[in-house]
Amino acid sequence: MRESRAIERLRRIAASPAALGLTDDVALLDGLVLTHDSIAEGVHFLATDPPASVGWKLVAVNLSDLAGKGAIPAAALLSLALSGDDDWDLHFIDGVDAACESYGLPLVGGDTIALPPGAPRIFGLTAIGRAGANVPLRSGGKDGDALWIVGVLGDAAAGLALLRDDAAATGPLVDVYRRPVPLLAAGLGLAPHAHAMMDVSDGLLLDASRMAQASGLGVRIDLDALPLSRAFVAEKGQDLGPRLFAATGGDDYALLAALGSDVDPLSLSLPRGTTIARVGTLVAGEPLLTLFSNGQPVPLPGQLGFEHSGHEHRRNPPSPMADRG
Amino acid sequence: MRESRAIERLRRIAASPAALGLTDDVALLDGLVLTHDSIAEGVHFLATDPPASVGWKLVAVNLSDLAGKGAIPAAALLSLALSGDDDWDLHFIDGVDAACESYGLPLVGGDTIALPPGAPRIFGLTAIGRAGANVPLRSGGKDGDALWIVGVLGDAAAGLALLRDDAAATGPLVDVYRRPVPLLAAGLGLAPHAHAMMDVSDGLLLDASRMAQASGLGVRIDLDALPLSRAFVAEKGQDLGPRLFAATGGDDYALLAALGSDVDPLSLSLPRGTTIARVGTLVAGEPLLTLFSNGQPVPLPGQLGFEHSGHEHRRNPPSPMADRG
Repeated sequence: MRESRAIERLRRIAASPAALGLTDDVALLDGLVLTHDSIAEGVHFLATDPPASVGWKLVAVNLSDLAGKGAIPAAALLSLALSGDDDWDLHFIDGVDAACESYGLPLVGGDTIALPPGAPRIFGLTAIGRAGANVPLRSGGKDGDALWIVGVLGDAAAGLALLRDDAAATGPLVDVYRRPVPLLAAGLGLAPHAHAMMDVSDGLLLDASRMAQASGLGVRIDLDALPLSRAFVAEKGQDLGPRLFAATGGDDYALLAALGSDVDPLSLSLPRGTTIARVGTLVAGEPLLTLFSNGQPVPLPGQLGFEHSGHEHRRNPPSPMADRG
Repeated sequence: MRESRAIERLRRIAASPAALGLTDDVALLDGLVLTHDSIAEGVHFLATDPPASVGWKLVAVNLSDLAGKGAIPAAALLSLALSGDDDWDLHFIDGVDAACESYGLPLVGGDTIALPPGAPRIFGLTAIGRAGANVPLRSGGKDGDALWIVGVLGDAAAGLALLRDDAAATGPLVDVYRRPVPLLAAGLGLAPHAHAMMDVSDGLLLDASRMAQASGLGVRIDLDALPLSRAFVAEKGQDLGPRLFAATGGDDYALLAALGSDVDPLSLSLPRGTTIARVGTLVAGEPLLTLFSNGQPVPLPGQLGFEHSGHEHRRNPPSPMADRG
């Protein structure tokens, strides 16, 4: 894969301790957590998506990275490519504003540019959060840690599938795809106790593998334990196939936390109503990823998540700076 | 102009003090200076520009914003859209690396995305600097302040003109266009003494007007005093026409500082060899911009700099978040 040359080169350049070896989705500087994610039409959102949902998502995708480190939103810089369609742009800004307001993220600057005619829309956001006393990195997982998921898996991917069949589709799964919720309060509650934490954005299997790899461990995932919403089960069912879909679909905005086996997450100060499920275990001396169902091993699917595999609609490619975490 | 609706909307959203009312190119947070600029093919650089020069320029354009506030580079997040051409991307990263290394800017994170086929290249960088004791904003200019330019004007615009005539053009003007030098050390030396400061990026006339407007003053510019390089004079001459070209061309990476009339900039600790020239005065109760040559008023040109006027190759549009400063 020639593309990895660019990524390898970036990793060599990013030698500062603040870069965390580019293994996390964030950098750390002076007690601040820094992250940047871009989204492009035809890659990270559909041309038919309502502009307000695109603006909301741009903010949410970055806030989810802050949530994954237990950081409190402090400031954002917006990189806005004007599309030439004023109404579209205004509705996009409405979505940015709504998300910023909902999660207390002050927009403090950025830039606007005009793109050449016909160029796909692209937007970027830098989000800055204040770090807590413990910033759980991907690399901090320990042998025997329990892996917990906050939130549910698969809803957004199922919503996207519905929209691909019918751009006019509606319903709770489409809502999750269009208006994801970054789990900031849960991240804040988990961070002091987590050995490792990240948001799940490119699929549980891919992201759990990344955490295991960064921690020098393997990970076992119990597919029967995946948290699925009622809407997901109603649409897709809950057999092994739908569970693998949910574990690889991506766009989840869930949190993945490695907690010592003695920690009861229900004893932590999480927001009322938080859905949290134990989905696996980090283990030393085992393969990077092992799946189970009904106590039996399950073969790995061909794709663990949104790997870089072409130009279809998908998440960012899984590079040090690529997965949107 | 309908586009200003989007910009007005952004200004209302960016109500945090850290945003500085979006009148500067930077935001201030916890003693850090934050800036983000994007550059797009066909808008901010030529498709024929060498990729290493595009990477260099992306870093330099952001460092110039830090220089304009007297900040010391601390960290950068790179938003890298992979072009599908690996060699191009690697050379681009070489340019980013060279500029980061030259100016002590640690690359600490960001993201990579793949664009849809045929999309123009676009890149973004968030640069973060540590603020000094005084951060000179655009709005701090005082009646009677002398306006000084560090660096020369017009070289990059002249270089771009040469390249438009002949993509194979070479020479010192092309070099300045391709490999601009952010004046960090000069900015650091001026900041403690400057009432207002910014980098000149969209043309002196436009940027000086912005400073005057933010300061609630008018500005007089003496076109005879513009600092021009020998290479510029050899290519363009130094009559009024070339002087107006230099004052409106943009892409200059010069610094514009408002100093009290009692301050002798030669007494400040500026790098050896720094070119500094007094080009004007901030004055109360006068029109926003008045030009002089040979002691006589000169009519304003139709365009003061790279205003937002279409989709030709140009700097960012002059909006609160648009001029790359």
